[in-house]
Amino acid sequence: MSSDAAALSINTIRTLSIDAVQQANSGHPGLPLAFAPVAYLLYAERMKHDPADPSWPDRDRFVLSAGHGSMLQYATLHLAGYDLTLDDLKAFRQWGSRTPGHPERESTDHATDTGNGIPASPLTPGIEVTTGPLGQGISNAVGLAAAEQFLREHFGSEVQDHRTYVIASDGDLMEGVASEAASFAGHVGLGRLVVLYDDNDISLDGPTSLSFDEDVEQRFQAYGWQTLRVTDVNDLDALRAALDEAEADEARPTLIHVKSIIGWPSPNKQGTSKAHGSPLGEDEVRLTKEALGWDPDARFLVPDGVREQFAAGNRGPAEHAAWKQRFAAWRAADGDRAAAWDAAWAGKPLPGLKAALRAVPAEKEATRISGKRAMAAFAPFVPTLVGGAADLASSTNTVLPEAGFFTREGAGQNVHFGVREHGMGAIVNGLAAHGGIVRPYGSTFMQFVDYMRGAVRLSALQNLSVAWVYTHDSVALGEDGPTHQPVEHLASMRAIPNLTVIRPGDSVETQVAWATVLEDLSGPAVLAFSRQGIAPLPRDGGDEAAWAGVPRGGYVVSDPEGEAAVVLVGTGAEVGVAVAAAALLAQQGIGARVVSLPSWELFDAQDEAYRQSVLPVGLPAVSVEAGVTFGWERYVDAAVGIDRFGASAPGGELLEKLGITAEAVAERAHQLLGD
Amino acid sequence: MSSDAAALSINTIRTLSIDAVQQANSGHPGLPLAFAPVAYLLYAERMKHDPADPSWPDRDRFVLSAGHGSMLQYATLHLAGYDLTLDDLKAFRQWGSRTPGHPERESTDHATDTGNGIPASPLTPGIEVTTGPLGQGISNAVGLAAAEQFLREHFGSEVQDHRTYVIASDGDLMEGVASEAASFAGHVGLGRLVVLYDDNDISLDGPTSLSFDEDVEQRFQAYGWQTLRVTDVNDLDALRAALDEAEADEARPTLIHVKSIIGWPSPNKQGTSKAHGSPLGEDEVRLTKEALGWDPDARFLVPDGVREQFAAGNRGPAEHAAWKQRFAAWRAADGDRAAAWDAAWAGKPLPGLKAALRAVPAEKEATRISGKRAMAAFAPFVPTLVGGAADLASSTNTVLPEAGFFTREGAGQNVHFGVREHGMGAIVNGLAAHGGIVRPYGSTFMQFVDYMRGAVRLSALQNLSVAWVYTHDSVALGEDGPTHQPVEHLASMRAIPNLTVIRPGDSVETQVAWATVLEDLSGPAVLAFSRQGIAPLPRDGGDEAAWAGVPRGGYVVSDPEGEAAVVLVGTGAEVGVAVAAAALLAQQGIGARVVSLPSWELFDAQDEAYRQSVLPVGLPAVSVEAGVTFGWERYVDAAVGIDRFGASAPGGELLEKLGITAEAVAERAHQLLGD
Repeated sequence: MSSDAAALSINTIRTLSIDAVQQANSGHPGLPLAFAPVAYLLYAERMKHDPADPSWPDRDRFVLSAGHGSMLQYATLHLAGYDLTLDDLKAFRQWGSRTPGHPERESTDHATDTGNGIPASPLTPGIEVTTGPLGQGISNAVGLAAAEQFLREHFGSEVQDHRTYVIASDGDLMEGVASEAASFAGHVGLGRLVVLYDDNDISLDGPTSLSFDEDVEQRFQAYGWQTLRVTDVNDLDALRAALDEAEADEARPTLIHVKSIIGWPSPNKQGTSKAHGSPLGEDEVRLTKEALGWDPDARFLVPDGVREQFAAGNRGPAEHAAWKQRFAAWRAADGDRAAAWDAAWAGKPLPGLKAALRAVPAEKEATRISGKRAMAAFAPFVPTLVGGAADLASSTNTVLPEAGFFTREGAGQNVHFGVREHGMGAIVNGLAAHGGIVRPYGSTFMQFVDYMRGAVRLSALQNLSVAWVYTHDSVALGEDGPTHQPVEHLASMRAIPNLTVIRPGDSVETQVAWATVLEDLSGPAVLAFSRQGIAPLPRDGGDEAAWAGVPRGGYVVSDPEGEAAVVLVGTGAEVGVAVAAAALLAQQGIGARVVSLPSWELFDAQDEAYRQSVLPVGLPAVSVEAGVTFGWERYVDAAVGIDRFGASAPGGELLEKLGITAEAVAERAHQLLGD
Repeated sequence: MSSDAAALSINTIRTLSIDAVQQANSGHPGLPLAFAPVAYLLYAERMKHDPADPSWPDRDRFVLSAGHGSMLQYATLHLAGYDLTLDDLKAFRQWGSRTPGHPERESTDHATDTGNGIPASPLTPGIEVTTGPLGQGISNAVGLAAAEQFLREHFGSEVQDHRTYVIASDGDLMEGVASEAASFAGHVGLGRLVVLYDDNDISLDGPTSLSFDEDVEQRFQAYGWQTLRVTDVNDLDALRAALDEAEADEARPTLIHVKSIIGWPSPNKQGTSKAHGSPLGEDEVRLTKEALGWDPDARFLVPDGVREQFAAGNRGPAEHAAWKQRFAAWRAADGDRAAAWDAAWAGKPLPGLKAALRAVPAEKEATRISGKRAMAAFAPFVPTLVGGAADLASSTNTVLPEAGFFTREGAGQNVHFGVREHGMGAIVNGLAAHGGIVRPYGSTFMQFVDYMRGAVRLSALQNLSVAWVYTHDSVALGEDGPTHQPVEHLASMRAIPNLTVIRPGDSVETQVAWATVLEDLSGPAVLAFSRQGIAPLPRDGGDEAAWAGVPRGGYVVSDPEGEAAVVLVGTGAEVGVAVAAAALLAQQGIGARVVSLPSWELFDAQDEAYRQSVLPVGLPAVSVEAGVTFGWERYVDAAVGIDRFGASAPGGELLEKLGITAEAVAERAHQLLGD
């Protein structure tokens, strides 16, 4: 392709971007103006992608980590032939458009939306992950590249063999989540990952030198990355050479340090923070177009031949056709393998998982141990489930037996994420967004959900089918004290839209919870497990009551002989406290129903008749949960909980001191009944 | 001091530590065994500290970032002469003890505990900050060192001239928060900060090589730190030489990379993760003592002369006496300066702040702009207030005018934290923990509280008098879309014990909120400000109603003519929606009271009579807030809110689409009234 033709294409990205920002009177023109050459090279020359099928499993992945520059991607997707029209670009940042302020992932899960708070989503073809909160995109990309590495080893390079490209900004690289993910990527040697770092010396408050003068290349070298430098983003040959070099090194991820001038060639705003987050203004748009040799009066102009140039340079459709042939032969050669592939890309376990979990016998044990037994039981049915813990696997009990470890030498299913909770969260989101990885999970103590909340929220916003496994779920963990004891964490997770939180009350409920998450749910789920031992619940309906009730979020564990005067509601280990309280009340002649309510979200999704069959209107109710009472007013008239921080002491003593006892629950019941 | 004497002291730290862990049958013996030489050198030879007065303002600060090794510090504090007895050590990790599982800060604020959920705290003299969640301590230390740098410039080196020492672990350095804080520390050149990094090759899940093989020294060099290496933690002379070199470079913070063997010299557990987080066991305790030449039968043995050796090497008491003389002369020479010092260390503004804020005229404007005007008004009264934003100051409007910037060249009051929210939070906590800095603050968009929640929680646990200023507090921020729009964030912050959240409803309420935070509150506060413009509220009681009502968390904005049939409760910008709904209802002949409820925590702390005077029992109530309805059941019978994620569109249109309108509120009121 001639360099004039390339320049025309690049300038079309630029002008479409500033026109859209100007029309919306909102947005970020600086990045699209400066970094258009990179987007052009990736989509028109470099990446293996097929605009006609953005879901082709073996496509290269692209992540605009600097999501505020969304028009760069939208303009490029349009020109490259994706199903994104000029009208879509003109609707930038408007209600219901497919061009929201920051890129939002097209979620195949929307088809099975649970009605759980998911927005009427703008679905943008070609967007792999939702970006905008800085540091997330580049960290998701580590997960995308890890997924490719795993699937390539698992299914073979005939069917999985692609790269992941990222455009990242100064802000992305200042964020700790990106540091964690980058260190992990270097550790496991994700050689198919290429990050193009836009070093433009400008952030929102002014020159980046106000807060950021570290040597980024040296830092990434310390992580084990290859680093390269391109001193002028407009030097296409230098960019091409750097991309060649990046791709030639398959043992290390690569950071290409690209110098740019933000907002170039805007005569009055380039190189300043004024070009970052506000429209240029009509006059400056004209001046910028003039500087590009563009018709200053043209709006949303795509010169003849530009779309064709993008298509001509794209080897993706041809490679896609060749892939389809290979894939058909690959499937035909091994039916089991084909079935495993289909299940993996449908995000489903192989048949038989639920039966295997039903066969796990009840035990008196911590639910984190029940979780371990669940994983051992379901492991054979989820050969592409990948996950791990943030250096707490031996405590959260989240290792898949006989499934190997994910290292630079081999892509096993178990990941050592290191003490990097936020990075873990973002990487797991990337694993899920890639496709082919069934229900990836991340695990740590529940306390540390606070460290990774940025990623947990994005799993909910994107409806990614991940699992967050949080153990040590109350003050009952004991001696480690208030820094490690969750108190407000269940409430704070329940507050997040579209996140299903499940806190099982014994070993059987734990098996049901895992079965529900793996077989039935789409979207993210939290599993909350205890550190301390829990006795099997004495269910009137036996284990079947749990198998029927947990998926509905709550159910009756036991009813008294005779009429119930009060309902006692618990979650997790505190269902047992409710059972003990009911026994106390029975001795005192008061009939109490016991309800286990492991998941508010699942319960709230039931019809009113079911909910009232569990929690009858007019019957006074008391809850007991070893955490803040915040929010329990929705279900009960009085809440027994812990509205303060915990303390360092043995767990049993602590529960006693903080009032999580059968006696306290019985007393609140008496108060309610006016006794 | 002879090396034999030093060895005896070091081994006393070791044996006290393993005895306490064994007695508690819980804790982490590996770090105290291995790193005892470092603790010994710091407390017996190196640090300027006075065990008789742990609150001496010019003491060196010490932070055990690897808080799980708490017995290392407790044993050392005991031997160094702090008010921590052998009985305290024997009560390690027990209810009510002063030796909790992880170090907890002695908070002078406990005296003025608001009863807001603060635990009956173990107060441990000599603990500067609460540590345990990895990465926080080292990041707090950056704040401690920044506070010293600021106060040294502000008050002069006669009265502020000390260092900050940290012991950090592999886990600390894997955490993104520490990466952010370290990059910041290098940027502003905190030359008085010395981090001793315990590189023991072991983390909880096994060898650190499972997840962490980056070149830590190279990474810190990239941040602009000096790095040094000591290859054997037991080589005291090498440690001394490294500390000399660290202290000689006052332009850069220093990382001393110290190799150790975890659990050394435990014969069977050293060098393995078994020595990390579990007691050694009685037999191994005996074997370890034998390896140290210790009486294996002795428990909690402090050999004769050890305490005296610690005291003999400590130059702190003499320096403290000299400081007192200098300080007295310094005070006497300038009475204004002395008064400013007293106010700073009391954490209070100078007289006149509230009057200055009362003089700020009401305006129709975004409360983030009201906040800017508040800062301009109160700036003269808080000369040692230090804070800033995570690269959003120009958007959150949180720059103190004429107060300069905190750089390596000069310690102004405004800090450019960079795009490092979690680091900002931990640094601000450190600024507050140091003392002398009045109400340090950190600011960003409310959405990004998720990134820094680990630090926000620790501000609440430690009752640190910080301010978190979160703007763009609802979907009304508009086009940036759901990644930037808080929805569940108010609820998730209200769930944290001991955190006061204030969301003012107009410009006057904003002035009151800042006045309340600066003059009246101890402990952390969140200020939530709008991006969009808000009209002044039409208060029946005029501005005085706000000055009286905001500090009480809620008050009546307006009552209808005649009897009120319903109460409409709002916060922030939505108080205005409630006002409009009341007007609609009035047209329909229904009297509605309007209540502004800017702070649930302050309101809940009022007596029942006040609360009922605002929200009368029996009067139906409807809330309106542009966020999830989670938790509103506590106050109202029906809640108008947004129980889903937001979307990208202009803010006004979005509020309309998502039902935050006067019409929707009026309709809910009708439903409640059975109309």
